[in-house]
Amino acid sequence: MTRRLHLNAFLMNTGHHEASWRLPESDPHAHVELAHYVHLARIAERGTFDSLFLADGPVLFNSVGQRPSGALEPLTLLTALATATQHIGLIATASTSYNSPYNLARRFASLDHISGGRAGWNIVTTAGAEAARNFGLDDEPAHATRYERAAEFLDVALKLWDSWEDDLVVADKAAGVWGDERKIHPPRHKGTYFSVEGALNVPRTPQGYPLLVQAGSSEDGKRFAARYAEAVFTAQQTLKDAQDFYADLKSRTAAADRDPDHIKILPGIVPVIGSTEAEARRHEQVLEDHIVYEHGLNRLEHLLHLEPGTLDLDAGLPADLPPESAIEGAKSRYTLVVELARRERLTVRELIGRLGGGRGHLTFAGTPEQVADAIEEWFRRGAADGFNIMPAVLPSGLDLFVDHVVPILRTRGLLRTEYGPRRTLRERYGLPRPANQFASTLV
Amino acid sequence: MTRRLHLNAFLMNTGHHEASWRLPESDPHAHVELAHYVHLARIAERGTFDSLFLADGPVLFNSVGQRPSGALEPLTLLTALATATQHIGLIATASTSYNSPYNLARRFASLDHISGGRAGWNIVTTAGAEAARNFGLDDEPAHATRYERAAEFLDVALKLWDSWEDDLVVADKAAGVWGDERKIHPPRHKGTYFSVEGALNVPRTPQGYPLLVQAGSSEDGKRFAARYAEAVFTAQQTLKDAQDFYADLKSRTAAADRDPDHIKILPGIVPVIGSTEAEARRHEQVLEDHIVYEHGLNRLEHLLHLEPGTLDLDAGLPADLPPESAIEGAKSRYTLVVELARRERLTVRELIGRLGGGRGHLTFAGTPEQVADAIEEWFRRGAADGFNIMPAVLPSGLDLFVDHVVPILRTRGLLRTEYGPRRTLRERYGLPRPANQFASTLV
Repeated sequence: MTRRLHLNAFLMNTGHHEASWRLPESDPHAHVELAHYVHLARIAERGTFDSLFLADGPVLFNSVGQRPSGALEPLTLLTALATATQHIGLIATASTSYNSPYNLARRFASLDHISGGRAGWNIVTTAGAEAARNFGLDDEPAHATRYERAAEFLDVALKLWDSWEDDLVVADKAAGVWGDERKIHPPRHKGTYFSVEGALNVPRTPQGYPLLVQAGSSEDGKRFAARYAEAVFTAQQTLKDAQDFYADLKSRTAAADRDPDHIKILPGIVPVIGSTEAEARRHEQVLEDHIVYEHGLNRLEHLLHLEPGTLDLDAGLPADLPPESAIEGAKSRYTLVVELARRERLTVRELIGRLGGGRGHLTFAGTPEQVADAIEEWFRRGAADGFNIMPAVLPSGLDLFVDHVVPILRTRGLLRTEYGPRRTLRERYGLPRPANQFASTLV
Repeated sequence: MTRRLHLNAFLMNTGHHEASWRLPESDPHAHVELAHYVHLARIAERGTFDSLFLADGPVLFNSVGQRPSGALEPLTLLTALATATQHIGLIATASTSYNSPYNLARRFASLDHISGGRAGWNIVTTAGAEAARNFGLDDEPAHATRYERAAEFLDVALKLWDSWEDDLVVADKAAGVWGDERKIHPPRHKGTYFSVEGALNVPRTPQGYPLLVQAGSSEDGKRFAARYAEAVFTAQQTLKDAQDFYADLKSRTAAADRDPDHIKILPGIVPVIGSTEAEARRHEQVLEDHIVYEHGLNRLEHLLHLEPGTLDLDAGLPADLPPESAIEGAKSRYTLVVELARRERLTVRELIGRLGGGRGHLTFAGTPEQVADAIEEWFRRGAADGFNIMPAVLPSGLDLFVDHVVPILRTRGLLRTEYGPRRTLRERYGLPRPANQFASTLV
């Protein structure tokens, strides 16, 4: 069988470009309206995407003045989308630092039942003191501590999802016996961060458990991904960086005794599509013209852990920035941004322009052919198993991608032409249904 | 305007009778299938009910062998139902003991946005050591401690729901200003159980916040209800008890400086409907014949905090049971069960038969006229503002109620004949939209 691209639609507000909401076409209330996401999900399903995805953090960043703020809670929103779609996978971000395993495992299990096996979990540890202070802490736990907790969280969640064997239900009405109690396996977990005694109160789900997705590219993040992740979202600015990341993560996965084909790597791409390259560039310019650079300055200083007022819009980044190891929080994004600015000798203003489009993800402006070429090149040259499609403007950018790039990818045999029968999300990604770790071998 | 009944459909598995799953008509897998609940929600909407409701506890009770076990997480399930219905309110149970205010407030706000203002929260403190052990505790917190935490939880949640003023959004695209930052009000809460610094990351919702519902009838429970609840579910076995409870809670609510009309009291009723009284009794008998009394014995001993093996199926309850004050957990249910057994001089077997039908709620077997008469009597004689309808068998019992009792209630002017325009859940219950505690009075 031909190796096929995996496509994920990363849905965010009125688009990934921070100024997208200011365009005449954008509805500034759309980001908290179900109808907007139903519309987007149906476009993605028309494009036979594998999945759609919502990022998240349990915190209101101080940006209400600057752009549409707040977000519907992703698992809740995706549950509503489960009933509005038929085939597409539904990947919600949720934090291991600010949830308890029992509740979160149960919610993902519920979504997996409701959606017929289309649930995915983007596992995040949630950087930042602002989030920590919404959950009784004074500051964020250290990066390494967050990842330690995440690993224990996963171990507990996996025990909970496996706490019912698949064939537990007997349903013997005459005898009054519903299930086989020997097929319940309470975790009885006592660890560093969690104690969870009892079995989950949801039967094992169509997928066994949700597709496990991860997006941190730090050293801790990659170690975690190699152990648990089945799909990885990553920000890569160059083919070479993407190839290096791809090779590294596949080999780490093999070293963790897993099949390297069972981790799918999807770099983010912000396609800005025009009928000519010049038109695409003009779209990009219109978006850049709507950036409020003073807002971008604040955010960049925050990302780089600099005091407000340190940066000059028309100068380069300071030479004496600290190394990634000194950064708590979004470590790999820090390095990506610093390297991008240095490699391309960008002023702070230019850097903000680049980040405003995709927050560090690759922005690619061009014709549908050119976008398809870029996708195919990365896919064929060992940089990607697929892509996280992040339209600069939504819904129009997703419409353009589906109407103009998707047909090219299909013609080239890189993408399915239709979904065919209903399948689970894990089947779409070509992954096996996980066995139950507690399943009896007795006949 | 005529005073009208409020009806809530309490959906549970294949019915409230514990043996309902054993009937030929019942699907023993239905309780974790979306289609079952969509079907039930649509029947309730055909009956122009105000709301539907799902009970919950974050624990798997040790009953997999005995009856259909596990449940989809209620907020998740109700979000799916929000898209399958138009008018009916959606009330989910969630625990204040095993959630954090930021996450839970956000999830209810999200459901309220998604459903167009139809979210309700049945606030529970979750009795039992089994649940506590799923969340890192060795035993349940004391009853009073749980209610103290619940009150602080509510105070924080109310601050979070009010942390955005209703008219915050400016959406000035030309100026690049989306919202008025002065209209964000972070809770900055530091209390005994919670510290929550930041504003919610969801705009204020159609209802302001979900309808607040409560169901504990202990002393602590009633004090809590008088302070916060807008609707109360209660188990009452006699008209007199229901009248006493009703009068007591209304007067407590007035004493808490609230309008007693702004708390709606809904006793539970398990209607078993037949075309004659004899047919209704036969339905009841068929259900009772399917009870496995040994299973009921274990549960009754657990409820009464007795050692396994203490009770004799064919004797009465022991004379020396402890007083309610000595009970941690479901205090008011304990008293109700003990009083029911003593008042009607029931053997343990007979008591289990009665509890198997409605777990302490009033079971009423009769013709549609007789059920409507009972409802009307309680409603007119100061015992109820409406009812929590708990069919013994689902979906058939709800169908019977909607097809045969609802028309009588409509003819008598006690129930709406159609929904009319879309309204919020709080409007259906005749309650005002709450003002924002932080709203500026400046013009």
